[in-house]
Amino acid sequence: MDRDREFMALALEQARKSYAEGGVPVGAVMVEAGEVIASGHNQRVQQGDPIAHGEMDCIRKAGRRARYGDVTLYTTLSPCMMCAGAIVQFGIGRVVVGEERNFRGNAGFLREHGVEVTLLDDAGCRSLMDAFIAERPDLWDEDIAGNG
Amino acid sequence: MDRDREFMALALEQARKSYAEGGVPVGAVMVEAGEVIASGHNQRVQQGDPIAHGEMDCIRKAGRRARYGDVTLYTTLSPCMMCAGAIVQFGIGRVVVGEERNFRGNAGFLREHGVEVTLLDDAGCRSLMDAFIAERPDLWDEDIAGNG
Repeated sequence: MDRDREFMALALEQARKSYAEGGVPVGAVMVEAGEVIASGHNQRVQQGDPIAHGEMDCIRKAGRRARYGDVTLYTTLSPCMMCAGAIVQFGIGRVVVGEERNFRGNAGFLREHGVEVTLLDDAGCRSLMDAFIAERPDLWDEDIAGNG
Repeated sequence: MDRDREFMALALEQARKSYAEGGVPVGAVMVEAGEVIASGHNQRVQQGDPIAHGEMDCIRKAGRRARYGDVTLYTTLSPCMMCAGAIVQFGIGRVVVGEERNFRGNAGFLREHGVEVTLLDDAGCRSLMDAFIAERPDLWDEDIAGNG
C-alpha cells in the first residue's frame, strides 16, 4: 500500500501538470515489476484530443505491447466507460484508483471482468478535482460528454 | 440502408488505406445530418499508437465537442471493449457495423446502453479482414491483446 501511495503521487503530479496547463487534471502512471514504464495526463485541451483521458494517454505512451496482464495502472480518478473498456480490452491486471467521489467511474465493471481494483480515496486527488470542477464545470462536462 | 452502405464504403476505403500502409485494416467515419464530419483508421503501426483503433482515431479526428447524440459512427469491424466503452461514454447515438464474423465485438453491450446498432454483414469488410488475419495473425493478436 505504501508503494501504491508513492506511485499515486506520481500520477497526481501528472494531473497537476495538466491543471497548470489549463487542462483536465487527471493523471496516470503504468508500473511493471516495480518500475514506472509510462506516465500521462488528459490531453483534451493541450492536444485537442477527446480520447486522451489520463489513462488513455498513459496507455498510448507505454507504446505497442502484446500483453498487459502484469502491469498496474494508477489513475487519479476512477475510470470512465471508455478507459474501463480499454483496461478490460487490453487485459490490464490491476488498477489503483485515486478517488471516485468526484466521478463514480467503473470499479464494479472492472472487477466483474477480472481486474483487481484498489481504491485509495486520496485527499490530494480529491481536492484537485474539487477545485477543477468548481472552476471549470463547462470543461468537465465536455470531457465526460455530460455522462457523469 | 442505401446511405448506410454508401458511408460504410467510405469507412472501408479508410480500412484499405491502412492495409496498404501495412497497418491494421479497420476504418471508420462519423456522420452528422447526412454529412461525413470525420474519418479515421487504426494507427497502431503507422503511429505506434495502441489506443488508435479505427473508431478511436475517427472520434479523435472529429475533435472536441460536447455531445454526440446526433452522430452515427460507421466502423468496418464490430467495436472492441475499448471502442464500445468510448461510444457509450460519449453518448454516440447510433453505430453501423460492417461485420462481426472476424471479431465478435460488443453490439449487445452497446444496445444495453441505449445505442442503436445496425449490422450490415458487408462482404467487402469481411474479405479484407479475412485476408489480414490470415496474413498477419501476430499483428492482429497484438491489436486486440489476445482478447478476441
